[in-house]
Amino acid sequence: MLKKFLVIVILLLGANIIFADEGMFPLNELNHIDYNKLKKMGLNLTYDQIRNDVSKAVVSLGGGTGSFVSKDGLIITNHHVAFRAIQFNASAKHNYIENGFYADSFEKELPAPGYYADIILDIKDVTDRILKKANNAKNDAERFQIIEDEIKKIEKETESKEKNIRASVVSFYGGKQFLLFKKFRINDIRLVYAPPRSIGEFGGDIDNFEWPRHTGDFSFLRAYVDKDGNPAPYSKDNVPYHPKHFLKISLKPLKTGDFSFILGFPGSTDRYMTGKQVDLFLNDTIPLRLKLFSDIINLMEEEGKKNKELQVRVSFWVKALNNTKKYYEGVQAGLKRDKVVEKFYLRDKKIANFFKKRKCRNPLVEINKLSEEIHKIQKSLTIMAYSNFVSTFGAGARIGRWAEEKTKKDLERDPQFMDRNIPRIKRRLETMQRDLIPELDKKMLKYFMKLFADLPENERPATFTKYFGKGSKEQLYKKIDTTLDDFYKNTKLTDKDARLKYFSMSKKQLKKVDDKLLHFAWDFADELNEKKENLKGLNGAAMRLKPQVIEVINEFTRKELYPDANGTLRLTYGKICGYSPKDAVWYKPFTTFSGVIEKETGKEPFKNPKKLIELFEKKDYGQYFDKDLGDIPVNFLTDNDTTGGNSGSPTLNGDGEIIGLLFDGNFESISSDYYFNPSLTRSIVVDSRYILFILDKFSKAQNLIKELTVVK
Amino acid sequence: MLKKFLVIVILLLGANIIFADEGMFPLNELNHIDYNKLKKMGLNLTYDQIRNDVSKAVVSLGGGTGSFVSKDGLIITNHHVAFRAIQFNASAKHNYIENGFYADSFEKELPAPGYYADIILDIKDVTDRILKKANNAKNDAERFQIIEDEIKKIEKETESKEKNIRASVVSFYGGKQFLLFKKFRINDIRLVYAPPRSIGEFGGDIDNFEWPRHTGDFSFLRAYVDKDGNPAPYSKDNVPYHPKHFLKISLKPLKTGDFSFILGFPGSTDRYMTGKQVDLFLNDTIPLRLKLFSDIINLMEEEGKKNKELQVRVSFWVKALNNTKKYYEGVQAGLKRDKVVEKFYLRDKKIANFFKKRKCRNPLVEINKLSEEIHKIQKSLTIMAYSNFVSTFGAGARIGRWAEEKTKKDLERDPQFMDRNIPRIKRRLETMQRDLIPELDKKMLKYFMKLFADLPENERPATFTKYFGKGSKEQLYKKIDTTLDDFYKNTKLTDKDARLKYFSMSKKQLKKVDDKLLHFAWDFADELNEKKENLKGLNGAAMRLKPQVIEVINEFTRKELYPDANGTLRLTYGKICGYSPKDAVWYKPFTTFSGVIEKETGKEPFKNPKKLIELFEKKDYGQYFDKDLGDIPVNFLTDNDTTGGNSGSPTLNGDGEIIGLLFDGNFESISSDYYFNPSLTRSIVVDSRYILFILDKFSKAQNLIKELTVVK
Repeated sequence: MLKKFLVIVILLLGANIIFADEGMFPLNELNHIDYNKLKKMGLNLTYDQIRNDVSKAVVSLGGGTGSFVSKDGLIITNHHVAFRAIQFNASAKHNYIENGFYADSFEKELPAPGYYADIILDIKDVTDRILKKANNAKNDAERFQIIEDEIKKIEKETESKEKNIRASVVSFYGGKQFLLFKKFRINDIRLVYAPPRSIGEFGGDIDNFEWPRHTGDFSFLRAYVDKDGNPAPYSKDNVPYHPKHFLKISLKPLKTGDFSFILGFPGSTDRYMTGKQVDLFLNDTIPLRLKLFSDIINLMEEEGKKNKELQVRVSFWVKALNNTKKYYEGVQAGLKRDKVVEKFYLRDKKIANFFKKRKCRNPLVEINKLSEEIHKIQKSLTIMAYSNFVSTFGAGARIGRWAEEKTKKDLERDPQFMDRNIPRIKRRLETMQRDLIPELDKKMLKYFMKLFADLPENERPATFTKYFGKGSKEQLYKKIDTTLDDFYKNTKLTDKDARLKYFSMSKKQLKKVDDKLLHFAWDFADELNEKKENLKGLNGAAMRLKPQVIEVINEFTRKELYPDANGTLRLTYGKICGYSPKDAVWYKPFTTFSGVIEKETGKEPFKNPKKLIELFEKKDYGQYFDKDLGDIPVNFLTDNDTTGGNSGSPTLNGDGEIIGLLFDGNFESISSDYYFNPSLTRSIVVDSRYILFILDKFSKAQNLIKELTVVK
Repeated sequence: MLKKFLVIVILLLGANIIFADEGMFPLNELNHIDYNKLKKMGLNLTYDQIRNDVSKAVVSLGGGTGSFVSKDGLIITNHHVAFRAIQFNASAKHNYIENGFYADSFEKELPAPGYYADIILDIKDVTDRILKKANNAKNDAERFQIIEDEIKKIEKETESKEKNIRASVVSFYGGKQFLLFKKFRINDIRLVYAPPRSIGEFGGDIDNFEWPRHTGDFSFLRAYVDKDGNPAPYSKDNVPYHPKHFLKISLKPLKTGDFSFILGFPGSTDRYMTGKQVDLFLNDTIPLRLKLFSDIINLMEEEGKKNKELQVRVSFWVKALNNTKKYYEGVQAGLKRDKVVEKFYLRDKKIANFFKKRKCRNPLVEINKLSEEIHKIQKSLTIMAYSNFVSTFGAGARIGRWAEEKTKKDLERDPQFMDRNIPRIKRRLETMQRDLIPELDKKMLKYFMKLFADLPENERPATFTKYFGKGSKEQLYKKIDTTLDDFYKNTKLTDKDARLKYFSMSKKQLKKVDDKLLHFAWDFADELNEKKENLKGLNGAAMRLKPQVIEVINEFTRKELYPDANGTLRLTYGKICGYSPKDAVWYKPFTTFSGVIEKETGKEPFKNPKKLIELFEKKDYGQYFDKDLGDIPVNFLTDNDTTGGNSGSPTLNGDGEIIGLLFDGNFESISSDYYFNPSLTRSIVVDSRYILFILDKFSKAQNLIKELTVVK
């Protein structure tokens, strides 16, 4: 599990300086796909029906996707998307994680704090307003700043004009186009149903990113609003929200070749890179990240060996890091397998020749130069960014930065410190207490600092030299050890209340606090911030060049044009189909209930609930049996183009009915974030017939089934 | 690789006390197969043609199978069957292992000492002669002894009557039938051709027992005789042997469903077990053996860590043990997967009810009782038998036993110490020097002795107690350490010449030798021998009961009747077909040359010769290209029923032409030695088109190709 969801969390911690067929199409660009082709494949709806009806039932759950499936605001999504809500409500007495959960009436539904559902009300093109101003800039840095400021302004204007509106301006095609999304954000979300973890997470980490898969990765939530239909925080008085549109669930038979389209919120892709950029990424950035992940995992596992409790506490992060590591290993394997560097270099050479013949300026040359410049400072920046992974150090950085930023007006601040984001930062300073292990924290910070010591002197951050001086590696290592031992002795960053107190202080007050670790983190944060400021010039240049690069690359590859994923609603089309992972092996596109039982080992993550095994033995399959398959389908594969953020996306048949929920991609598809290989990239979907089988036969969730509109 | 060959070596070291659809049919029982069925499947030959023509070209190479493929005694077999011959001739200067070998004229062919080729001249049923005597026995022990003696007598008689004949009497159906095989043994065998190891062993241990497979596991040998056509030791004056029959090689296209039959010498199966017997085997014997293998591998690997040279010296055994371990893991996995214990218990219950109703004696009840009796002493016997794996200890045992046995007449000796086998024992006492590492030897012997210390007092061998006394485990461990440290200080068993000198001594002389380790090993060997003597009663009972058990089991399963494999020539029929190893996965029956290149990693065992990669890039495929496959086929799967000993067996089409050489089975098939699951058991064959492609395009072995009869 985890898959197309959690990876995001860790990716965001990294330094996202490297900029961001297939086809993840924005709904306003459906005309880029030949309608007749889709019709032939099996689509029975018009584009207008998709835009105005079907897609309106699809909501962003923040990192995952959901869809309304009843008039009373019932939302279907993945088990792993709803997992935090299940975990929040679980206790030794009510072990909803292990046993699952089912509320057979509204009153029994449980709060899911932190969850929200965004419904897109309106999309407006604000490119002209932004670029008109930006194009007056004297240089790239100013251009970047103008764009950032204008975006903040538009968002703030929109939110102040209308109640209950969340506004966000998103850039498309690397800065060619800017769209304003007006969203209705419902933030009283409740847990309605979850299967036991042994179904919802069956196969666990072992099967993560793998096929054949046998996971019942689905859950149900419900959106609540106040009596007037407005978004409101959790309250007993709130009532179920009535969406304008909701989706039907299909039990119709499926087979290889059947048309499928998916609506969802893919997070990020980077498919318009040059050969040089992929080269730097594959041969430099990824190895560094993999090394970082491995080392941190080792440190954590070592600490976990000390006792059972520590093991439990580090296990979540070890799992998350392993997941991200597997992601990068997948990217690495795929880019190598598909020889992307070689292919792109060849393509870029053709492009270069084309321009040369015509004595024209080649934007690829410029962006490559830029990328190399950025790459030079990348290593040190990556280490700086990842060191915020150290809880106390990261907290100190945020506290210090906020002390600086709070002196500015809201619109002038670094966007992450604008008023609308402060509650989230505060919550994080509180909740981090759960995972904090001071001894591990110190070890990790020492590890990061020693990475700086390993760099050539001129690549080290100034703050590093300020605190540890210069000298041989051995001398620096020693200095790091003694200095940090000292810092951790008197720091209060390990204390929740102290952190919150620090966070509320003015810059002046905070400067006076006697906490060396805090000031150390603050100094680093200031330097990182300054470096990011300096990068504005480079980022501005990138924003200027990227649209031109995309245009040229597209011209030379001639595919259906679409922008990289950026967390906005997209449609991808495809069909149910298997694939050949290697010579002589064919992966069929459907797994079966028999396959679930075949994997049974009696041990997690392959331990089935007793009742499920009994159902298998009784062959009590009801209407969920597929005649052609001779079994109940569990998961299936499609060649739809999806990525992280698509978790929970409805997978729809030609009539726009849910045939399953996307929950993962195969290992071979991971690299499709950068290069799409149509013969290997597959989405993994939990079949709606398995969902209903579990609801009906296993959980006896009859009220829930009644609420759904099931079509046969 | 290794596969259907080497496993045998280690199996024989184990205590073989547990008695040993499939269908491995002796050529005199082809009438057990419906001829019309085979004709329908694609057989174009009569049974007489197979018996009198095709099968005469097939020879036993001792642990592996070969076939004559030219009038000049050219033999085709597996690379791993010919490997010792390649290794023997390889040197730093002539690295035939890495580079392969090709003699383009008779003179350049190299000796392969230790190799022989057995041609079966005649088979005679001697059941009556043996059983008439045996049935007069007073008890089972006497019966066993009479059978053993009579077999020795018949073999000796036959060999003395005719020159150049090797005779062996083999029991079929657990002692129901005895056949005398008269063989013509050619013992001047020479190496003609071997591909580089990177082709012949491609995939190495990683791919061992696995599908998809991409191994060019073939080589060529040649049989030489003296000028009069008689077998003779290696001599420059010898000439190529002219076999009466040899096989053609087919380049005809193949496809799924095509008929195939295989002739070869499968070593051992045990398919007529009762539920109780499988239960004891699966749940007691296998776990003990797996523990032994793991522990010994660990001991060896630890020793190997000390330095590179030691690592090289233990690596052969570590590899062999890992192979055997994988074998038992396969057996374990398969028996569990197929629920064999449960199935057989159910079947046995039906049988029991049948007999109960009729108030008849049920031989299964008797054999189960017997098996339990044997099993009780099994643990200690297994440890005793495997401890002979310790080089010095095993040598001491053989030396001591020979001193006893040499006082007896040849016919009265333990068969392994009959005159005909003495040279082999002597050679082993010499060659063991290569692998002997005294420090490791001592550690291993301590390990085995401590296993006895872990047993309850009454299960320990008397010799153990004689040397180490009684006491707590800790006391015994200590005593073992100090005693063996002392023994190893003064032993000469670590010295080659001393061992040979000991071997030549009389019992009286040897008794006087001052070598505590020798006497310790001797005492153990005597006790083991005595225990085996005592087992004769049980084994005799087994030999009496087993034929009855087989009859009953066969009656209740109603398959085509055939005896368990016992190293004699068998025919198995089948077809080319893939299989589903697990839910949603389909393994196709052909792998391709593209797949070879796909596996390339640049590192052993997946490093292809540069020239092979060039051939791939040039697509220089010639007549070896298969149109349907769109590639050169490399390996294919059939559902023929084979096992260890079948290595190198010719896989034949309906016309009796070679379409490939069997060289392994899939992991799922390993347990077929005990229970045949037709949907999962597959033989792995190297396609004759890949063999000829390598000979022709890669090795340019044109003379060799000219010598073959290739049909298209």
